[in-house]
Amino acid sequence: MRDLATHGFALNQTMLRVRDPDPSIRFYTEVLGMTLLQRLDFDEMRFSLFFLAFLRDGETVPDDPAERARFVFSRETTLELTHNWGTEGDPVFAGYHNGNAEPRGFGHLGISVPDVGAACARFETLGVPFVKRPNDGKMKGIAFIADPDGYWIEILSPNGMENAVAAQDEGNKI
Amino acid sequence: MRDLATHGFALNQTMLRVRDPDPSIRFYTEVLGMTLLQRLDFDEMRFSLFFLAFLRDGETVPDDPAERARFVFSRETTLELTHNWGTEGDPVFAGYHNGNAEPRGFGHLGISVPDVGAACARFETLGVPFVKRPNDGKMKGIAFIADPDGYWIEILSPNGMENAVAAQDEGNKI
Repeated sequence: MRDLATHGFALNQTMLRVRDPDPSIRFYTEVLGMTLLQRLDFDEMRFSLFFLAFLRDGETVPDDPAERARFVFSRETTLELTHNWGTEGDPVFAGYHNGNAEPRGFGHLGISVPDVGAACARFETLGVPFVKRPNDGKMKGIAFIADPDGYWIEILSPNGMENAVAAQDEGNKI
Repeated sequence: MRDLATHGFALNQTMLRVRDPDPSIRFYTEVLGMTLLQRLDFDEMRFSLFFLAFLRDGETVPDDPAERARFVFSRETTLELTHNWGTEGDPVFAGYHNGNAEPRGFGHLGISVPDVGAACARFETLGVPFVKRPNDGKMKGIAFIADPDGYWIEILSPNGMENAVAAQDEGNKI
């Protein structure tokens, strides 16, 4: 039974650090279709935050700063990209760690799409790097692409996962 | 302008690996108020997946497996915990990497709550470890707690962030 003290809690954000916000924001907006909701610059601490989300049909981002902040931070679910100033031009900076080689931890973001095949055909056309194409490996019908920092993004569809779960349930019976 | 080919895309999941699902699921359900929507066991590959989310008022999880799969994988936004079997009892396993020490990458999940002070007072009572209490450091009114694997979870409120954004806007004018 859910503790009533948690009423109103929402999973608002997942934060990833990025080397250069320009290609990252182009990727998340132009390739994936997210909208940049809010940018915050912290001059003294030399970092910027970029909050992105998939707007729902008819949803708009308020212009008023206070209203926009409430919209961004009450909302399920945003992607928060953190840019520590200077990494984009630092030849010594080795890049960020995507969590899928040692030491492991974070795995991926997952984006639900109506049609994995159509989405991946478009990603191919756009030159997006694939970690796994829909027909590679055991898990057919799901794909993994990489964002500009090498973070993995799973591409899945509700229909495809329904089939995968059914197959998995079948497997468990054996 | 959003590419129409991305219509219907949703940020469905963030995946984190966990050493032992029992304390993790207790933490995310009992302490944070999420609901376990779906468990999938992959016997051959020796891992299990656990999908959790904050249910909205009146929302219920379908019993039918196919309907439930559609519910889980079309939904914004779930937390996917991956358990590679055996880590929970392996004395050699060093634990997962939270991304906030080198090599950095993933930063945190953020949970929006109605009242940061009340939420944190309850977390204190429950013995949850804090990375940053609401009054520590420069960013007043937000906190960071740690989950059983050491992943950071930001605790923020829409009102608090509205004030922080206003202060930040003010700072940018100086």
